[in-house]
Amino acid sequence: MDLISRLAVRTVSYKSGRFLFLTNEDGANICFMLSGAARVFRMTEGGDEVTIAVRSCQSTPILLSACIKGVGIELLEDSVLCFKATDDYIKASSDDIELRQYTIAQFMEFFECCHQRIEDLVLRSVEERVARQLVLLAERPSELQSKSSATVRITQGQLASLVAASRPSVNIALRKLQQRGILTTTSGFIKIASIDKLRNMSAVSL
Amino acid sequence: MDLISRLAVRTVSYKSGRFLFLTNEDGANICFMLSGAARVFRMTEGGDEVTIAVRSCQSTPILLSACIKGVGIELLEDSVLCFKATDDYIKASSDDIELRQYTIAQFMEFFECCHQRIEDLVLRSVEERVARQLVLLAERPSELQSKSSATVRITQGQLASLVAASRPSVNIALRKLQQRGILTTTSGFIKIASIDKLRNMSAVSL
Repeated sequence: MDLISRLAVRTVSYKSGRFLFLTNEDGANICFMLSGAARVFRMTEGGDEVTIAVRSCQSTPILLSACIKGVGIELLEDSVLCFKATDDYIKASSDDIELRQYTIAQFMEFFECCHQRIEDLVLRSVEERVARQLVLLAERPSELQSKSSATVRITQGQLASLVAASRPSVNIALRKLQQRGILTTTSGFIKIASIDKLRNMSAVSL
Repeated sequence: MDLISRLAVRTVSYKSGRFLFLTNEDGANICFMLSGAARVFRMTEGGDEVTIAVRSCQSTPILLSACIKGVGIELLEDSVLCFKATDDYIKASSDDIELRQYTIAQFMEFFECCHQRIEDLVLRSVEERVARQLVLLAERPSELQSKSSATVRITQGQLASLVAASRPSVNIALRKLQQRGILTTTSGFIKIASIDKLRNMSAVSL
């Protein structure tokens, strides 16, 4: 589906590491990602930052975020996004049943991400969450598929934010995984020797 | 907005305590709640049950769940629901801009619930989650407003599921709150002496 021509929007390219805060005054934008990877987070009233989801895509545009108060995005890769005011989006979908089907499907997919995040926090230990997150990062669409090893560019601080744990507990988890020969860490990078073993560690089929 | 006439659906009444599993074969229903209260949960492949949200409403219909694999509902009160196949829903919204606006607004509201759940799990202790959940239950729309005390009908097992903690740790949290004179527990009920004190305990503005 050619979202760009349907929505008549301009795409915007952003560099990896860029933060975008999506709370404009009216808070009424829907944001799509056309390529890249991002962490979607939320700032609490108390100033805490909570990661909601990590999302990536290669060719099919995905719903990255909608007009929810306090939501922000940190780009984990060079990315291409587009924005549309919610009211204009609703108007654009007036005569376009495909766009409406796409919208519902995208909302469902984002719910699925939120549900998985909740499942993760309720059921998995920090070590299992670290393992799962690394598998997801190593296997995201923008990476090459079907490989047995991978190098993931991420700091322990970023990883702690992605798995909702403290940096020290992420460090302990990584050291345990390193002792088992599953990965090695260097500054800013994690080299995964066996994605399969890491997948087994994450305690679920991914 | 008169959702029922717009969607041309029949409403269905359910008794408190009823479980509904929303994974029909095609998994393609959108479910709205017209009155009552429900716990939305998800069954994992491993057979664990994870609560996603607790939702209630009095007069304005809310989106309770959409066609996501493995989602179920436990009704916490006598409730009135209606269902619509997703494809039919999309067709119904063809010439109805108000319905499309309502849909987007409802999706946003449900995302907000999921986000709050994630925030809860990441930032709050079991005791804070118990306090917050009890305030939410005492103040849901179907209860009388603006009161200082309340009796909430809930078992410790249900409460454990709502706050994603073990029964023993919920029991410990409740005993601490009881020692401070904030509430008393009897079989199947929790009597809250001071909702204000409980709100302070939950560590956030609600």
